[in-house]
Amino acid sequence: MRLLLIGFGTVGQGLAELLIEKEKMLLDTYGLNAQVVGIADMLKGSLYNAGGIDLRKALKLAGSGGKISDLPDKYDGDALAMIKTAEADMMVEATYTDIKTAEPATSHIRAALEKGMHVTTTNKGPLALHYHELARLAKDKGVRFLYEGTVISGTPLLNLIRETLAGCAVSEVKGILNGTTNYILSQMEEGMSYEDALKQAQELGYAEAVPDADVLGWDALAKVTILANAVFGATNKPDDFPCRGITEITADAIGEAKARGKRFKLIGKVWRDGDRVMGSVAPEEIDLTHPLAGIMGATNAVTISTDALGDVTIVGPGAGRTETGYSVLVDIIDAGGKR
Amino acid sequence: MRLLLIGFGTVGQGLAELLIEKEKMLLDTYGLNAQVVGIADMLKGSLYNAGGIDLRKALKLAGSGGKISDLPDKYDGDALAMIKTAEADMMVEATYTDIKTAEPATSHIRAALEKGMHVTTTNKGPLALHYHELARLAKDKGVRFLYEGTVISGTPLLNLIRETLAGCAVSEVKGILNGTTNYILSQMEEGMSYEDALKQAQELGYAEAVPDADVLGWDALAKVTILANAVFGATNKPDDFPCRGITEITADAIGEAKARGKRFKLIGKVWRDGDRVMGSVAPEEIDLTHPLAGIMGATNAVTISTDALGDVTIVGPGAGRTETGYSVLVDIIDAGGKR
Repeated sequence: MRLLLIGFGTVGQGLAELLIEKEKMLLDTYGLNAQVVGIADMLKGSLYNAGGIDLRKALKLAGSGGKISDLPDKYDGDALAMIKTAEADMMVEATYTDIKTAEPATSHIRAALEKGMHVTTTNKGPLALHYHELARLAKDKGVRFLYEGTVISGTPLLNLIRETLAGCAVSEVKGILNGTTNYILSQMEEGMSYEDALKQAQELGYAEAVPDADVLGWDALAKVTILANAVFGATNKPDDFPCRGITEITADAIGEAKARGKRFKLIGKVWRDGDRVMGSVAPEEIDLTHPLAGIMGATNAVTISTDALGDVTIVGPGAGRTETGYSVLVDIIDAGGKR
Repeated sequence: MRLLLIGFGTVGQGLAELLIEKEKMLLDTYGLNAQVVGIADMLKGSLYNAGGIDLRKALKLAGSGGKISDLPDKYDGDALAMIKTAEADMMVEATYTDIKTAEPATSHIRAALEKGMHVTTTNKGPLALHYHELARLAKDKGVRFLYEGTVISGTPLLNLIRETLAGCAVSEVKGILNGTTNYILSQMEEGMSYEDALKQAQELGYAEAVPDADVLGWDALAKVTILANAVFGATNKPDDFPCRGITEITADAIGEAKARGKRFKLIGKVWRDGDRVMGSVAPEEIDLTHPLAGIMGATNAVTISTDALGDVTIVGPGAGRTETGYSVLVDIIDAGGKR
């Protein structure tokens, strides 16, 4: 399995570390010999070697803030040129999400699928804006289009619904889809002000300097849209669903909810209403006896309501270098491993 | 896919209902035409028809307390004779668990595997006592040996670890594996005495008239043994692990734990200690911030500790007619469905 890594930030590097660490296990357990033949990164430069790139050297350079293009395998074109000319079996699209344009990720994915490569991505843009087009293209080309890392990172949710809840009819998917806002709400319940909690989340690297995507609910909204399209078969764009973040929640409101046996959570959900698929992102008061109420800090959790099993809840990390790297690895195993 | 149902109690009937209800979905989504050709039940009698049994009629008779052997497809031999002579692709072993002898379930499974049938079972006995022998036999014969329903019923745990956590190294599996005792502990926290809570659990059908298997921890111990053998590759018997139930927990102890921010849960766990696999069942004081602490009532929950993702917790039903029937259905899809 020859891989192209498009984007060599946190996710790409997390994956590269896992590929080194788990090389023997992948071969022994899944008969999978995964080899990175190309890396393209806007800031760190690009590498290509049909015989395989030395991941250790690339990681070392990237880790010390250097340019990987200082290595002998330096590649001079951009990511799209690499995808169009490289000999590879699967592309990993791990560039930063641009939820407005979904570019350049969508162009990368389209080009890779056109060439008959499997694709896995952690980029929410192409999924939220172009899911059906890309899924159809993958089907036409007979390749896999996977995206476990786009929703709650490596914690299995999409695979869980597809594989281990096979045969269940899903009526609602509802959960804490954004760890940053859950961390802020948890800190506010402990008595911190919104401003201080946000500042702490920024210091811990949970929140960006411009925190809008998290606190206004846009990140959760992108995930809701992915669930609506990929799990419920809808053809929606993020703008189709109402979205409210956590910026209007006061410490007083949190205290009052607690006194009533409730806890505020920023809830993203998708559900069926007859033939229609509905979605929303909004703060909700969750009963303290519900499994989602106990999820504190940067953890994510999703409750899947099914016909045969009732409610099943999955709880796990929603971000992190290794965690998101793993979400890509499990897709690579899915596409190329023998079970 | 021609099926034999050995045992036509709650699980077998739950499965039969799902097979009727989901017939079209199974065909459309998984290309699976599942047909029950034989049913054998110690109490309700047996049926065999190579062309397929009328499940609606069998369910109607079983539901009204009648004998299914009043139907025209009556079969005169016992279950073992049916397995040995029937033309079938997969056997569903859903007889009652005898954790001391694991019979007659083990003989049923052995015979079915010998004949080259896939097997799915909800019976904990054969898994706890003869896992490796049966897994090896299945491998030799090139068929699947599946058992999702033996641990926390249809809530995906074994499939989750095998499929959706593929490539993760699991260091510990720990959880609330018995809904009955969790219900009793939840009621005791609300102020009920152990005796009253047990009585209520019996009235609700959660606990048996002789409740030892639940309250002494034996049911959880069987599941711990299955996890040790099937997930961790150990070769253990239930007697190898220490086991304590909930009978010594007093209302006072529950109150004192609560005052310390803790909650008693009956925890079954399996973990690695160097090269050794350890297991235990015992009441533990769980910190209220842990996802397992918030699991109240007859719900089950398991936390899987992994290298790549840290802790992932799955929460869902641990019993129930449809829920356990579904655990068998998902194994049937796994063995015979096209994905």
